[in-house]
Amino acid sequence: MTGNIHEECGVFGIYSPNTIDVAQITYCALFALQHRGQESAGIAVNDDGVFTVKKSLGLVSDAFSQEDFNALGKGNISVGHVRYATTGGDSAENIQPIVINHRKGRMALAHNGNLTNSYELREALEEKGAIFHSTTDSEIIAYTIVQERLKFGSVEEAVSSAMDIIKGAYSLVISSPSKLIAVRDPNGFRPLCYGKMPDGSVCFASESCALDAVNATLIRDLLPGEIAIAENGKIRFDTSHCNKVPKSTCVFEYIYFARPDSVIDGASVSEARQQAGRFLAQEHPTDADVVIGVPDSGLEAALGYSKESNIPYAIGFTKNKYIGRTFIAPDQTLREKNVNIKLNPIKSVVNGKRIVLVDDSIVRGTTSRRIVDQLWAAGAKEIHMRISAPPFISACYYGTDIDSAKGLIANEHTAEEIAKIIGVTSLGYLSMEHVLLLTGKNTGFCTACFDGKYPVAPSKHSEKSRFERKISEAKKHKN
Amino acid sequence: MTGNIHEECGVFGIYSPNTIDVAQITYCALFALQHRGQESAGIAVNDDGVFTVKKSLGLVSDAFSQEDFNALGKGNISVGHVRYATTGGDSAENIQPIVINHRKGRMALAHNGNLTNSYELREALEEKGAIFHSTTDSEIIAYTIVQERLKFGSVEEAVSSAMDIIKGAYSLVISSPSKLIAVRDPNGFRPLCYGKMPDGSVCFASESCALDAVNATLIRDLLPGEIAIAENGKIRFDTSHCNKVPKSTCVFEYIYFARPDSVIDGASVSEARQQAGRFLAQEHPTDADVVIGVPDSGLEAALGYSKESNIPYAIGFTKNKYIGRTFIAPDQTLREKNVNIKLNPIKSVVNGKRIVLVDDSIVRGTTSRRIVDQLWAAGAKEIHMRISAPPFISACYYGTDIDSAKGLIANEHTAEEIAKIIGVTSLGYLSMEHVLLLTGKNTGFCTACFDGKYPVAPSKHSEKSRFERKISEAKKHKN
Amino acid sequence: MTGNIHEECGVFGIYSPNTIDVAQITYCALFALQHRGQESAGIAVNDDGVFTVKKSLGLVSDAFSQEDFNALGKGNISVGHVRYATTGGDSAENIQPIVINHRKGRMALAHNGNLTNSYELREALEEKGAIFHSTTDSEIIAYTIVQERLKFGSVEEAVSSAMDIIKGAYSLVISSPSKLIAVRDPNGFRPLCYGKMPDGSVCFASESCALDAVNATLIRDLLPGEIAIAENGKIRFDTSHCNKVPKSTCVFEYIYFARPDSVIDGASVSEARQQAGRFLAQEHPTDADVVIGVPDSGLEAALGYSKESNIPYAIGFTKNKYIGRTFIAPDQTLREKNVNIKLNPIKSVVNGKRIVLVDDSIVRGTTSRRIVDQLWAAGAKEIHMRISAPPFISACYYGTDIDSAKGLIANEHTAEEIAKIIGVTSLGYLSMEHVLLLTGKNTGFCTACFDGKYPVAPSKHSEKSRFERKISEAKKHKN
Amino acid sequence: MTGNIHEECGVFGIYSPNTIDVAQITYCALFALQHRGQESAGIAVNDDGVFTVKKSLGLVSDAFSQEDFNALGKGNISVGHVRYATTGGDSAENIQPIVINHRKGRMALAHNGNLTNSYELREALEEKGAIFHSTTDSEIIAYTIVQERLKFGSVEEAVSSAMDIIKGAYSLVISSPSKLIAVRDPNGFRPLCYGKMPDGSVCFASESCALDAVNATLIRDLLPGEIAIAENGKIRFDTSHCNKVPKSTCVFEYIYFARPDSVIDGASVSEARQQAGRFLAQEHPTDADVVIGVPDSGLEAALGYSKESNIPYAIGFTKNKYIGRTFIAPDQTLREKNVNIKLNPIKSVVNGKRIVLVDDSIVRGTTSRRIVDQLWAAGAKEIHMRISAPPFISACYYGTDIDSAKGLIANEHTAEEIAKIIGVTSLGYLSMEHVLLLTGKNTGFCTACFDGKYPVAPSKHSEKSRFERKISEAKKHKN
Repeated sequence: MTGNIHEECGVFGIYSPNTIDVAQITYCALFALQHRGQESAGIAVNDDGVFTVKKSLGLVSDAFSQEDFNALGKGNISVGHVRYATTGGDSAENIQPIVINHRKGRMALAHNGNLTNSYELREALEEKGAIFHSTTDSEIIAYTIVQERLKFGSVEEAVSSAMDIIKGAYSLVISSPSKLIAVRDPNGFRPLCYGKMPDGSVCFASESCALDAVNATLIRDLLPGEIAIAENGKIRFDTSHCNKVPKSTCVFEYIYFARPDSVIDGASVSEARQQAGRFLAQEHPTDADVVIGVPDSGLEAALGYSKESNIPYAIGFTKNKYIGRTFIAPDQTLREKNVNIKLNPIKSVVNGKRIVLVDDSIVRGTTSRRIVDQLWAAGAKEIHMRISAPPFISACYYGTDIDSAKGLIANEHTAEEIAKIIGVTSLGYLSMEHVLLLTGKNTGFCTACFDGKYPVAPSKHSEKSRFERKISEAKKHKN
Repeated sequence: MTGNIHEECGVFGIYSPNTIDVAQITYCALFALQHRGQESAGIAVNDDGVFTVKKSLGLVSDAFSQEDFNALGKGNISVGHVRYATTGGDSAENIQPIVINHRKGRMALAHNGNLTNSYELREALEEKGAIFHSTTDSEIIAYTIVQERLKFGSVEEAVSSAMDIIKGAYSLVISSPSKLIAVRDPNGFRPLCYGKMPDGSVCFASESCALDAVNATLIRDLLPGEIAIAENGKIRFDTSHCNKVPKSTCVFEYIYFARPDSVIDGASVSEARQQAGRFLAQEHPTDADVVIGVPDSGLEAALGYSKESNIPYAIGFTKNKYIGRTFIAPDQTLREKNVNIKLNPIKSVVNGKRIVLVDDSIVRGTTSRRIVDQLWAAGAKEIHMRISAPPFISACYYGTDIDSAKGLIANEHTAEEIAKIIGVTSLGYLSMEHVLLLTGKNTGFCTACFDGKYPVAPSKHSEKSRFERKISEAKKHKN
Repeated sequence: MTGNIHEECGVFGIYSPNTIDVAQITYCALFALQHRGQESAGIAVNDDGVFTVKKSLGLVSDAFSQEDFNALGKGNISVGHVRYATTGGDSAENIQPIVINHRKGRMALAHNGNLTNSYELREALEEKGAIFHSTTDSEIIAYTIVQERLKFGSVEEAVSSAMDIIKGAYSLVISSPSKLIAVRDPNGFRPLCYGKMPDGSVCFASESCALDAVNATLIRDLLPGEIAIAENGKIRFDTSHCNKVPKSTCVFEYIYFARPDSVIDGASVSEARQQAGRFLAQEHPTDADVVIGVPDSGLEAALGYSKESNIPYAIGFTKNKYIGRTFIAPDQTLREKNVNIKLNPIKSVVNGKRIVLVDDSIVRGTTSRRIVDQLWAAGAKEIHMRISAPPFISACYYGTDIDSAKGLIANEHTAEEIAKIIGVTSLGYLSMEHVLLLTGKNTGFCTACFDGKYPVAPSKHSEKSRFERKISEAKKHKN
Repeated sequence: MTGNIHEECGVFGIYSPNTIDVAQITYCALFALQHRGQESAGIAVNDDGVFTVKKSLGLVSDAFSQEDFNALGKGNISVGHVRYATTGGDSAENIQPIVINHRKGRMALAHNGNLTNSYELREALEEKGAIFHSTTDSEIIAYTIVQERLKFGSVEEAVSSAMDIIKGAYSLVISSPSKLIAVRDPNGFRPLCYGKMPDGSVCFASESCALDAVNATLIRDLLPGEIAIAENGKIRFDTSHCNKVPKSTCVFEYIYFARPDSVIDGASVSEARQQAGRFLAQEHPTDADVVIGVPDSGLEAALGYSKESNIPYAIGFTKNKYIGRTFIAPDQTLREKNVNIKLNPIKSVVNGKRIVLVDDSIVRGTTSRRIVDQLWAAGAKEIHMRISAPPFISACYYGTDIDSAKGLIANEHTAEEIAKIIGVTSLGYLSMEHVLLLTGKNTGFCTACFDGKYPVAPSKHSEKSRFERKISEAKKHKN
């Protein structure tokens, strides 16, 4: 699947016992997390209580110059963030990490997830006189922590107290003047792991691939609800918020969001995808000549299907690796001619073959339809589409950009109808039963997007709670 | 005088009865106010309660693109700001106008001046949980207004109440969702005038030259302490803060800061400068062949001196009009060779002449010394320097960047010594007596920089109150 | 193999019977050819004899803005080029296509390849008074054509005559005011194919993947020595230079340079790579648990090895798809820590396994060593490296950037020694015998880089012939 | 007069006996010449025969970064150029200096002026096979010199021989590998002076203000037809082309183009302008209260008028010094409201006064009309306009952008009619008799724009000879 659902963020933090080049380490880590957010990036360096931050729109490689690194300087703590912005416009103020210069609560904060009670929290904070500069949940979290900080002696007490107030999905990395704190929400919606570098530095990251990128060794993911505090060269844990609600980690992290070389909660993403392919072969067997995956996330599932079914695996597409965000879309006429810009089928592989085509999801159907059309044009005899997840029917309120069920093809059509709409010979989805077993025994997944069962109640304001939306509606109304 | 003292800001606001292109009108006005701040510029447009803002580092002409204007759109209220930043670094968050998205206090605010109790106000607000994003007084003013807004029914009541809390120099232009409010502090430190456009729009501006630029007719300056409220197509005034303290408008506005085509508190800046020259000729007559002024602010004073003394006026320098902020300074060797980049004397005017050289001030002496050296090199026989202001001996806490008396040459040397240091035949300053009469009878000037009598007590934290300075010191300490 | 050898260019041309958006079509095609040159890109549009050109450093997606397309406008002929520049510095004048505004020879020209007699040609042309603006062979070709143009009636006669003068590797696309001409050198060193679009437009491209990208149907590659002329809605061919020397197409196009979805001289690149893998399995069998390829060009060969050997295929690496040219390399310390930025092994695939690792080449050995180290660190038990080409021992003078044998590891070491240097359990190269059979029967390949047998004699000036090198040496000498 | 006629270029060259920072010296000089061309700038550094060049669109301050200076490095010769481009579009290839990498004629060349036989020269050179990359006369000159270089032993012989071939206006600065050569055409249309720096370096510059900027002492202007050669630490002269035709220097250099601090052919520009004002007072006396000049070039003439007439001089306008090329013009509505953006009258000076308004020219009348309207609006009682030049009635073919008499208001109307059109009380032009005496006795001026007497016959192709125009017409025709 190419570009229809988006993870909203990736976070990273490093605490070093020494003053080192934490900015460049964070930069390398953010590169490895780039797939979790391509619209902006930021790095905050804490040099003994003095915070310097650089934030910019664009990819990590475009966002930072050598001058930026000179300005960031060295330090012993750094927090980094990559972001996918759901709203357009001048979102410069929404780029993370957020740096707060409050005399009792100076901190840098990076957040992956989405709160479900942000509307109510913002309203209450504003009644007290708080003024928000961005429209992000992250700023609400920061303000809440600062409010709690005025009541407690330590920043970790303030964070712990804030966890009783904020609801929803949040993986946080927070630098106070002398500590680096990481928090995973009690449901564990989003991953958050930690590792150690040979020099004793502690790193927190959304995915373990970022640890690999900085030569840190993965220790484990934080437990749902766990708070980790790195300070004075040591790391300690507060588990007082753990085990109060069932774990409900986003299963789409395994199916699509995460990189295959990452390990989440002890399970390899690559393995989970291959397992999805094997389950698919059991559930939806077929006669075919070749199994091909849609790059990149469908490749491992295709390999799993091939192994289970003994139908040969093949590399069926070439993906153009240079197409970025700035591609100037050709006009309507050119697009209608079915231009094979992003993905091009390899004719010698496809021509005259009965094909099993494995992808991770069908969101609105248009992308799938285009890929299928390409295969027919390249001479495919049959196309048996297999999806390594159940049908996607409900909105997600925990950190992706599908915040409405409207437009989801599986919400409106049966699998048979979808097969016709996208033009395949047959179509099979992974079952709910199997999706829970992707990493072995059922280890606790959020499957709300497949079944509408929400582990944390969405906001009553959920469809309308975002400030920017109200503004833009007002704007629209006036023009 | 070329670039030694800096005004910190210029403000503009427009309220129109109709939805028009207020952004472009503000843009034209900011051009006319560019001399009051060249480091950043911002425009906020209020379209029936929806605020859009564009802010950027650099000159007005570089700060806004056609796309920015498209994004700003039309509206009925706009607020604009140009800024000279006293501290370096990443000051993007300090660019004005500040836009506040608080549910009871949505507003855009632009500020010219400097508070004297910002340290205490910020401390108190943070104790309540407020979080500041910038290090500007403007944000402190905005937060204070929002705090008062929670107690009162109307934004103008909140503004009036805030005036009892904030101390120092402030000329403000504030847009609430439906009103445009302008405020001049009770001392009237900085100018703030208003005018009307033919279509009934009301404009507020730091100087009347900005009204000329948008074809508005100057009505008058606000009184010290006056609040003006434009709403429902009308303008009304609150004078409850007026006449409680004596007027003390910065006399340097007339001598140097303002444009000669501006009229402040009913007096022409051009006339005031010519008058300074006439006074100088009375106080410090001399035999000479020609009177020349240092461009640009010394020209009118030189003309006044010439008229009073009957010594012919001449144009003695060519000023390079293309040198901007990005000029890459030649290295030390080249600079020592006395490179005439910015100002070049016209030899045919200077050679063999006894010269009266009129300038507006001597701050540290280095610039004056360089200009004088140029004249000697061009063949001057005598150089009689005349300064159209008294000696500058004390710091200013009301909106310029001379916040310390350290390094001011007149603070450490007599006029005779200074004459020797900068190498002139004779040197004469305008007397305190005459400076008070520049616009006719004494109409109330702040002359603290000449006599150390501060109309509003400076902060005890004044030398250390700025947040950025503490940060940068901490930084320096660590590196 | 990741980034050690570089193809120097990709070319594209379109001739349409109508005035259409040829610029955007060329843009899409250049995207598909981006792997052949990432340092600069250019598009020239010919609108009824009026040429407009846009050229820029950087990737295609960065090189052209919407404004550029507006400026290029519509036309009936367009020529495009992507380039890998072998020398640094200010190469703006070397970007192609070259546009010549000569009154008898107005043309746009794009070139892929390298002449072997450019030094002599340039010398002779300069003796006649020619003045060169760039240091490219392409400008020499253009000048030669213009010189011949003064003797002949038609541009195609001039091109044909120029082919008797220029020596070496050249695939050219040339637009005269009314014709589009494509030329492949008599040896056919570089590919050059053509296709047709549904509206009758004719396209020429370095690779057929560019035809796919614009929805054109591949007809065939030009014959070595063939000239194709598109004019008046038709295409005609001049084969007078064909079959005078044996075909010697670069075999590395199949092994590494070309995209797997391209078809060159009738043979699928994907198939050729899989065949290389099958040959490797026959030549160098081994006991192992898994076969993995080095992305991207080693994947198909790994799949071929797997099929022939029945050792399971696996996806062993995740390649970071966001790392571009602007990545700021971490400093030495960080690099020594073995940072896995570009490629990261998937531990669950590698750990505890005996691995067959397939790559396309070993150039200097450093990249291979780093990849092998990563696999050991990820827990590999054995690493059997298989290279889908013979050892690379000689310089290439026909359009790649390996213009010296110095530093080529296979030039100095045996396979056994190389195995030790890069740290693998065993190492096997594809044999010369098999490399000639990659596309079936021996169809005529240049294998000079494997055996030093040069189909066209290299220039005596070859090591020193490049103008920029002389300049830079002179420069170095002086500083 | 503000922006209606444009000088096309300024040139500078330095030859130093030592290897020094010639790039930065050239940069300072170009700043001083910026008024002669604001659209692009270039610097070529010659370090012992190795040329490095940086050229960019925009002002000098924007065109060069610190990186550019690093790249340019040190050297002993440098050539610089500022340019006003008469045609829009992608003129990057037209930026000077031109650097030629020909093996017998490596050189950098900068040119101010316009050839009258460029069409014929280009045609003849192309017939021999020459290929032009730009559409500038400068490239034609360079090619001609190279052609002659093939016949002669030395570059100065080639230059001298080329002077028999090229016709029209040219002030050239040329660097060969070891020499710096300056040439002024036999008519001396454009100025070109030279000076010496304290370290023995020789500088050539379009105006002496550039010598002042680099601390060089003006020696004299080159004679019309003179060639100066700096080599081996010495300067020598070739006068073989001198005194063959009468001197005809552009009188507009004195009236408008040059800076007032420059000295041309021994005469001060400031003095010449004051003299023009004195002549005007004699020719066109009037009763009035005040004399004001239109900034900047009208100021000295106004001062001269004031002195001769005893009517007091005043500063009547404030010119906005921040308005550059990127000002986004307000839309029609705003412009019609008579926005005083660039120039604003000072009301206290103008109101109720009878004014003598001195400007240097009236080209089309629109700018003058707008200024006059502003004065009426500011309360002027009478406006007596005085122009410090005769009526402008004919095209200029020697280096300005008025290449057609079409649209020149004086070509179609009498002075009385023009007075009515622009709305002044009276209007007086300087007489032809007096304009010849501006610098004392008649020293030989080109007055073709006033009387149509052309010292060198314009090309028959003059109206159509420019390549870019033909192209753009063709383009227009097609779209």
